[in-house]
Amino acid sequence: MVITHPTNETYLYVGLEFDTVSDVKDCWNQIQTTGFDFISIPLANERRDCRQDDQNNGFSKDLLFEPSVSSDLELAGNIWSTAVLGKIHYYPSSTAEAIPAIEAYVRQQLDWAQHLNLRTSFVAVDVCWSEEQHIFVANMIASALISFPRQSICIRICIDGTWTDSQQNHHNYKKVGGGKVMHHWDIWNLYRQCCDYHPCLSVALECLDCARPSPSQLFFQQWLSEPVHYLILDTKIFLKNRQGFPVLSKSFQSMLSRFLPFSVSILVRGEARHPNGYASYLQYLGYLYSKQPTMEDSYRVEMPYFDYLQAPLQPLADHLDSQTYETFEKDPVKYRLYEEALIHCFQDRVRDDNVVVVMVLGAGRGPLVHAGIRASEQVGVKNIRIYAIEKNPHAVRTLKSIQRSDSRWQQIVEVMEEDMRYWNAPEKADVIVSELLGSFGDNELSPECLDAALARGLLRPDGICIPREYTSFLCPLSSPKLFQEIRGYKNPNIPSPFEIPYVVRIHHGQYLADPLPCFHFEHLPVVDTSSHSEDPPSSSSSSPCRHFRYRRLSFQVHGPIMLHGFAGFFEALLYDDIKMSTNPQTLSHGMFSWFPLLFPLSHPICCNDSECRVTFHIWRKVVPGKRIWYEWMLTEPITTPLHNANGHCYSMSSSTSTFS
Amino acid sequence: MVITHPTNETYLYVGLEFDTVSDVKDCWNQIQTTGFDFISIPLANERRDCRQDDQNNGFSKDLLFEPSVSSDLELAGNIWSTAVLGKIHYYPSSTAEAIPAIEAYVRQQLDWAQHLNLRTSFVAVDVCWSEEQHIFVANMIASALISFPRQSICIRICIDGTWTDSQQNHHNYKKVGGGKVMHHWDIWNLYRQCCDYHPCLSVALECLDCARPSPSQLFFQQWLSEPVHYLILDTKIFLKNRQGFPVLSKSFQSMLSRFLPFSVSILVRGEARHPNGYASYLQYLGYLYSKQPTMEDSYRVEMPYFDYLQAPLQPLADHLDSQTYETFEKDPVKYRLYEEALIHCFQDRVRDDNVVVVMVLGAGRGPLVHAGIRASEQVGVKNIRIYAIEKNPHAVRTLKSIQRSDSRWQQIVEVMEEDMRYWNAPEKADVIVSELLGSFGDNELSPECLDAALARGLLRPDGICIPREYTSFLCPLSSPKLFQEIRGYKNPNIPSPFEIPYVVRIHHGQYLADPLPCFHFEHLPVVDTSSHSEDPPSSSSSSPCRHFRYRRLSFQVHGPIMLHGFAGFFEALLYDDIKMSTNPQTLSHGMFSWFPLLFPLSHPICCNDSECRVTFHIWRKVVPGKRIWYEWMLTEPITTPLHNANGHCYSMSSSTSTFS
Repeated sequence: MVITHPTNETYLYVGLEFDTVSDVKDCWNQIQTTGFDFISIPLANERRDCRQDDQNNGFSKDLLFEPSVSSDLELAGNIWSTAVLGKIHYYPSSTAEAIPAIEAYVRQQLDWAQHLNLRTSFVAVDVCWSEEQHIFVANMIASALISFPRQSICIRICIDGTWTDSQQNHHNYKKVGGGKVMHHWDIWNLYRQCCDYHPCLSVALECLDCARPSPSQLFFQQWLSEPVHYLILDTKIFLKNRQGFPVLSKSFQSMLSRFLPFSVSILVRGEARHPNGYASYLQYLGYLYSKQPTMEDSYRVEMPYFDYLQAPLQPLADHLDSQTYETFEKDPVKYRLYEEALIHCFQDRVRDDNVVVVMVLGAGRGPLVHAGIRASEQVGVKNIRIYAIEKNPHAVRTLKSIQRSDSRWQQIVEVMEEDMRYWNAPEKADVIVSELLGSFGDNELSPECLDAALARGLLRPDGICIPREYTSFLCPLSSPKLFQEIRGYKNPNIPSPFEIPYVVRIHHGQYLADPLPCFHFEHLPVVDTSSHSEDPPSSSSSSPCRHFRYRRLSFQVHGPIMLHGFAGFFEALLYDDIKMSTNPQTLSHGMFSWFPLLFPLSHPICCNDSECRVTFHIWRKVVPGKRIWYEWMLTEPITTPLHNANGHCYSMSSSTSTFS
Repeated sequence: MVITHPTNETYLYVGLEFDTVSDVKDCWNQIQTTGFDFISIPLANERRDCRQDDQNNGFSKDLLFEPSVSSDLELAGNIWSTAVLGKIHYYPSSTAEAIPAIEAYVRQQLDWAQHLNLRTSFVAVDVCWSEEQHIFVANMIASALISFPRQSICIRICIDGTWTDSQQNHHNYKKVGGGKVMHHWDIWNLYRQCCDYHPCLSVALECLDCARPSPSQLFFQQWLSEPVHYLILDTKIFLKNRQGFPVLSKSFQSMLSRFLPFSVSILVRGEARHPNGYASYLQYLGYLYSKQPTMEDSYRVEMPYFDYLQAPLQPLADHLDSQTYETFEKDPVKYRLYEEALIHCFQDRVRDDNVVVVMVLGAGRGPLVHAGIRASEQVGVKNIRIYAIEKNPHAVRTLKSIQRSDSRWQQIVEVMEEDMRYWNAPEKADVIVSELLGSFGDNELSPECLDAALARGLLRPDGICIPREYTSFLCPLSSPKLFQEIRGYKNPNIPSPFEIPYVVRIHHGQYLADPLPCFHFEHLPVVDTSSHSEDPPSSSSSSPCRHFRYRRLSFQVHGPIMLHGFAGFFEALLYDDIKMSTNPQTLSHGMFSWFPLLFPLSHPICCNDSECRVTFHIWRKVVPGKRIWYEWMLTEPITTPLHNANGHCYSMSSSTSTFS
């Protein structure tokens, strides 16, 4: 009876927590009837003698594990493995001597959880503990993650702030004197770093008695990129509406809305304070979920790609396949912007009946040719000739097939199977249109391709290039998830997975500052076209390394936060004031052709200060006619190794494709 | 004609630098006659037109490489490869546009150096450059180290301090405005980090015009652990003695003495200011080298092990071999200390003619038995019985063979092939002697072995244990060399080479603070010995995890410096006030049985502040009767992953050896 969003077709899983279990079958039947999806139960039977042993910090030497349920037969195997979460019972030690017994006790519970095939076990930690107590527990969890490789551990941490004390007042812990109380995210960050970003470690945020939270911007920056798998809501945080039904405050609703897109599940706990019992809570959460806004189409298209790492395309070196063409042709915004740019351009240029020569460089399967035809019709251009230049023979086949079936194409389109960099054009163009931009603008070698074509004099001295110029942008990124993904990225040809840029739809990630401009390129007609050289473009009159770039970017990051890399975008000026942008600040809304380009850092960097200066250096290096690559490093807050030095992990081939 | 130390038999290589080469054969003949070992020459002919192109920051677009020598035939191949160093000519760029041409120019020189098989090429950097200029050069070097894998690059950096400007006044560089001038070690640290601790990157410290340096303690802490391969001495820093011969000031001599044990070579440069030419400089350096103190014997014994990583011994799980026994038996100090302790002990205890029962637990090939016999003879103990307990059957064979040939042994020694943990002794001992300590005290499981023996009631209630107690010590370590060594440590059974402790004679390393005590163990008689249980010792009456330990240690480190790990030592109290120590502060001088135990960190940590707090946590974890291991992590200045969590990379087996 999982809650389903009426239009998005996404799911919300809601569970119910039991503090004690007298009969687990009863618990299960109860939530089945009510409609919850899962239960959380204690793994161990808390024995009275432990609780009373106050002299010893709540720890008894004879602490022996006794399961909370009589046997694994009480529930079916698939219920244990899919719908039951375990909660680990333990006391944080305040003395080193007590640790081995506590650790053994926790391991017995994990062993039992593993026997039951439970998906996840909760370990509650308390913001009142000293740093040393947290270090003991973090150490225990780091060891457990190694010895129980099939077990996921979820750290439960209360985010109520100063009201936290009530969280575990049923536990007999004592605060160790001296140590300062840690902030909730710092606590999680300690566990996470101690466990070295273990993929089986997640976090649950517990809201126990604060009905009207007022989370700061930093709160969301810190938590939204973390593996927050559960929000635990005590019934105490629910208000009553006029009919007496449980509801959440506005501020709670809006906090919840920020987390729901990250597939969190909700666990309800505490006493049911409504005559209908827990059903009213579930109903309300279902109602709330159904009121979440409907996703935009582009978001829906992008969902399967969330946090999925892709090596950047190399359309110059490799031929795109039919599926790739099809995906990109579906972009509802990109070709509209091109069409608009062409309309403005034709309006400006077409003053008589002279023929307008348009060259589409890299025509693919023709979307820009279509845009050119539509624009010319709209403006009423009488005389137009469109050259569709494409080096991929398979795409040329498509272009010719369109031409055969389309009389307008027959009249005005010339399909040429050519590499734009070496093509001897029969005439000069008024307008050159191309869509060679990658996620980072220049990373599919648009500068090299267009400049080679322009150097051959393809464009009239008063001609124009669409796009006319483009700039890449970068901003610092926090994404534990992507750090884990990259660490797990296996490719025997790549010496280090942290030294290549990835195209990725960043979902579990937070941008830590506004993007700053990085590399800029513009394409203007080459005026002196006297030397129609047969040499490759790399040795043309201008410097062979004119597309070398270096940029130093300094950001102010609001810490504490972990830095994992930099996200790259671009802004392109197509024509006039028509811009196409993947930069979040100036985004062309609804466009999905480009995901950000991620430049990872080989190690997570601590930005501890509330105003932490982050200085990034990036190079675009060129071996003319051979390859182009980026190198990057940090010098603040610390100096990192130069990533991808000499392009040893990743470079873009600028030599002619072997198949063209 | 290499300079050889008269008693140490170590070498000092001295070279001569030529700023220009008109005929390289001449240069070579000149140094051959004078007695130098190698030469340094420029790789490129500096062309006049580059130097004059001042508008462009000394950089001409047409900068074309021309070798300084006419061909590789000028010298024999083995001379190029062993006795010639190249100096790279370049200008630091102050604009990004100039970089590709400079980089190409440097690469041509490296290409040429590689063709000549030169061992090393110098790249001079200037402390006056801006950080950005250093970043450009560091980037260039990082790339070059990847593309020229056979080339070593040595960064030359002047340590004269504020007098540095004169260093490169023949270069046409301009200081880029704004950036602060960097400190010499920070500059090197930037290059080193950018190049990710590349093993082919080294550093040369250049002394150009400061005759009386006054290096601080921080200077030595920073530089002595670095790969300083050359000290470059300009003739200007030499003073004249009364006979007019070149000599170095006292302060220079003492600085030199600190570097010479690290196998630096010396390169002399500048104009010869003595009628005898460069020969007088060489003579003086030879004289100075011969005056270096003679090494101690223990130092000489240890030299082959400098910075050589060894996995710690596991004498409990594995049998030591004959070579290992032999090495350790040669220690001139250790057995003297044991003998002294036994003398004191016998003097205190032997009051009548009662038999004194001594048990040597882990007798090996008998050195402690010998020490016991010698001590008893010295004190005049009339009645003594020595049990030599050894689990290694091969060592037992040795013991029995000694017994056959030694009548004193026949009278008083009983050789038993037994595991001390399970031995049913025929009587109780007055004195138990053992040498089970590892580099970190407890890391060869002395606590487990002795306590198991004591738990079986081997010792009389008034008996004593030698050693009576021991404490491990730790201090923070900077050692780029050992970081490189560990990164290169290949063992298919170890998931991460940074998560195991190593026994290593640390040479290229600096302790960054005084060692602090870590784990403490003491061995006292077990008074209640009523239960002579047959169970394994782990389930004896006291807690099975009583040897679990945890320690948090905070150090103040004087930065800036890089932290690479922690060095471990121990102090043992044998008897009375007789101590045996590997802790540098209380060292038992001349003892070589133990090298420090190194706990590495998986990534170098920047300690930037002049007073940087470093907090280290270390656990000694125990699975009773199975294995024991250490886990460790940092929480200041940053939090690291828990190293060796659950002992997944390294643990010591405490189960019975399969062969015993």
